[in-house]
Amino acid sequence: MKSWRKELWFNVPTRRAFINITPQVDAELAASGIREGLCLVNAMHITASVFINDDESGLHHDYEQWLERLAPHEPVRQYRHNVGEDNADAHMKRQIMGREVVVAVTDGKLDLGPWEQVFYGEFDGGRRKRVLVKIIGE
Amino acid sequence: MKSWRKELWFNVPTRRAFINITPQVDAELAASGIREGLCLVNAMHITASVFINDDESGLHHDYEQWLERLAPHEPVRQYRHNVGEDNADAHMKRQIMGREVVVAVTDGKLDLGPWEQVFYGEFDGGRRKRVLVKIIGE
Amino acid sequence: MKSWRKELWFNVPTRRAFINITPQVDAELAASGIREGLCLVNAMHITASVFINDDESGLHHDYEQWLERLAPHEPVRQYRHNVGEDNADAHMKRQIMGREVVVAVTDGKLDLGPWEQVFYGEFDGGRRKRVLVKIIGE
Repeated sequence: MKSWRKELWFNVPTRRAFINITPQVDAELAASGIREGLCLVNAMHITASVFINDDESGLHHDYEQWLERLAPHEPVRQYRHNVGEDNADAHMKRQIMGREVVVAVTDGKLDLGPWEQVFYGEFDGGRRKRVLVKIIGE
Repeated sequence: MKSWRKELWFNVPTRRAFINITPQVDAELAASGIREGLCLVNAMHITASVFINDDESGLHHDYEQWLERLAPHEPVRQYRHNVGEDNADAHMKRQIMGREVVVAVTDGKLDLGPWEQVFYGEFDGGRRKRVLVKIIGE
Repeated sequence: MKSWRKELWFNVPTRRAFINITPQVDAELAASGIREGLCLVNAMHITASVFINDDESGLHHDYEQWLERLAPHEPVRQYRHNVGEDNADAHMKRQIMGREVVVAVTDGKLDLGPWEQVFYGEFDGGRRKRVLVKIIGE
């Protein structure tokens, strides 16, 4: 069994953003030389997400509005977590969007459906954060 | 290490449905000959879900009502994604229910709890869609 | 390829609770002897969750309030599932928080970010329930 590990670093200037990281994950899979296996991609931070969906700006706008409705940032003081912090809502948004994805590796490629793209979801930006790519297989 | 890959195809006539696919996943595991490992089951489409929960019709009715409350289909024009489409809500419902499950494989069986069943969740039916089953192990 | 399997048992006296199980998962990884691979941790019950987030009591209070707002327990009769049961809301809360996490194993350790902790989320306590730890690798 072979394994491969790489950290991808981000520093998003805005509080929230969705970034398509499929090319970076593809590159790590190519570098790994693994042809059959599983590829885990996870946020290493608890106010960020890795998820799979569509690379369509209208949808990303809708996600932003929808997550803000389900877990509003304001008023900041509504959350007990926000003592010296203001990111409780980010911990909630990330649970809806998910921490991680596991993608099959087949014939040396990410085995994704036609519209599946891997995203980094930032919900509390303005600081350096990491995504872990871990691939195991042969 | 052995690996096994199979696509399961669906064409749900209604917009939304929950379909128990545990028998199909069981059959793929048996065909794989894998005794110890991990089994990934994921929707290959971004308006569908694979999740694990109870095979109980009352609960499925409740899920349907609840998801519609959290991410309403109507009015369609409330979503910026819906330009020539009407499925923005389906992209949201799928994030709540999840894209994928990873199930342990132990002694050649899906290592599920007593009530755990694997479901395909369709949120934008009326077209052919796929679920990927990928099993790795020995 | 090596594999390791262990069930962790819980009997939470309250209806809902979040329990940090990172030490137990760490112990299973040490016992497995696996140095590189993937570690699946999943609830074996469908009204419970395994998720990764912060071990901070204010946040856990906020999660409790937030989940109750998104999927209220009362009135119990609002849910069709609640025939001889009162836990429909628990099936919903668990979908938001998720069934499982997959954690990379690197150099014999859980490859977690600085604040990542693994939690058992109970949403319908007062009974014995299990979490499955399955580790594969070398």
